[in-house]
Amino acid sequence: MARLVLLRHGESTWNAKGLFTGWVDVDLSATGEDEARRGGRLLAQADIRPDIVHTSVLRRAIRTANIALDEANLHWLPVRRSWRLNERHYGALQGKDKAQTREEYGEEQFSVWRRSYDTPPPPLAADDPYSQVGDPRYAQLPPELMPRTECLADVVARLLPYWYDAIVADLAADRTVLVAAHGNSLRALVKHLDGVDDTTIAGLNIPTGIPLVYDLDESFTPRRTGGQYLDPEAAREAIEAVRNQGR
Amino acid sequence: MARLVLLRHGESTWNAKGLFTGWVDVDLSATGEDEARRGGRLLAQADIRPDIVHTSVLRRAIRTANIALDEANLHWLPVRRSWRLNERHYGALQGKDKAQTREEYGEEQFSVWRRSYDTPPPPLAADDPYSQVGDPRYAQLPPELMPRTECLADVVARLLPYWYDAIVADLAADRTVLVAAHGNSLRALVKHLDGVDDTTIAGLNIPTGIPLVYDLDESFTPRRTGGQYLDPEAAREAIEAVRNQGR
Repeated sequence: MARLVLLRHGESTWNAKGLFTGWVDVDLSATGEDEARRGGRLLAQADIRPDIVHTSVLRRAIRTANIALDEANLHWLPVRRSWRLNERHYGALQGKDKAQTREEYGEEQFSVWRRSYDTPPPPLAADDPYSQVGDPRYAQLPPELMPRTECLADVVARLLPYWYDAIVADLAADRTVLVAAHGNSLRALVKHLDGVDDTTIAGLNIPTGIPLVYDLDESFTPRRTGGQYLDPEAAREAIEAVRNQGR
Repeated sequence: MARLVLLRHGESTWNAKGLFTGWVDVDLSATGEDEARRGGRLLAQADIRPDIVHTSVLRRAIRTANIALDEANLHWLPVRRSWRLNERHYGALQGKDKAQTREEYGEEQFSVWRRSYDTPPPPLAADDPYSQVGDPRYAQLPPELMPRTECLADVVARLLPYWYDAIVADLAADRTVLVAAHGNSLRALVKHLDGVDDTTIAGLNIPTGIPLVYDLDESFTPRRTGGQYLDPEAAREAIEAVRNQGR
């Protein structure tokens, strides 16, 4: 039986400041580090031992994996990284204050940029201080693959090749796979796994730092829709808290 | 031109306590973490950007790589790990106090175990608390490959397949390669690279936390014997300090 474990990184320094982050490579906050440690403890307590780890190329996901694995005594696992697991590129909103943006553009536009499935924010200029153009980690990406903004549909499209070629390949070899990534790259993956429709996905949130376990059948479809959080109570509370934000 | 960078992990908690460590998976001390950060800063200052990183499967080398790369803004590099880069297995001496061992067995025996090229310490019993038999990270090693003790000649023999198959393969693809490993696995590699003879290698020490850079020719032989430390002055002082130990 193939087993997939998803781990969303904990609070970053920009989460704490309320800024749009996207591909900007900010670090975890101290709270985020604690969340990563909790993730590792939950894995160890559940006696779930991944055989391989996949991360994005962003520090907050990489450090979440490093800290969680260290905590679970699994620091020695093989690891692969891909830009295809990166957070959604937030376009011209990267580096902007969320509350100010909401005020400036109004609740409706703000909500479309954050949650619509197929409307990306305006593209980031190549000379924007928060552009990733020229970043050596993307040197092997031809310009047509390098996003300047993304909606969730774009994330699904660029994520799926990695899912099929790298992650499914590991699952097919009977490996338990841990994916340490981001709110939107994991939502994109869950959308695919659970067959969530384009509207319903807007209301789906994945809590940070709580491993989400999917047992998959021979066609790599979840045996149980939605998988199972290793701390269901904490996951429910976290999801509830997000739902109540701004009410 | 192929470029190889060697980085020996900094002080571990057992280095600080004066215990033989070998394959026991102890963590870095706070001093060791500082050394790793210095290693990362030296890489960044010299503008050396590895394309891929190889580590052992031991925490002190893995964390040295993680910390150094984080410091150099290279946390996103691909990484590979292998038991073949592990520290020399110290056999029955693992977990023993170095000073007590010297007292118990005498200076000559102590020195043979520490520095002779081809005399390993007595083997570790499988039920020794410091045995690695049953450790999941070695689950894919058949028993005949799992060491119970090693001399430096044994380390050379088990390291070279990884050098040829994994590291040289990367170098041949024009990648700059960083190897984060241990005193004796790096001595074994340097012995091979520089053609150091079995006697001279006894006196060769590699300082911790200071990247050692080898530029290699088309046959993967150093253009300059001994390579070049990124902080030659600090390296010279560290080597001198080891030479004077116990005088």
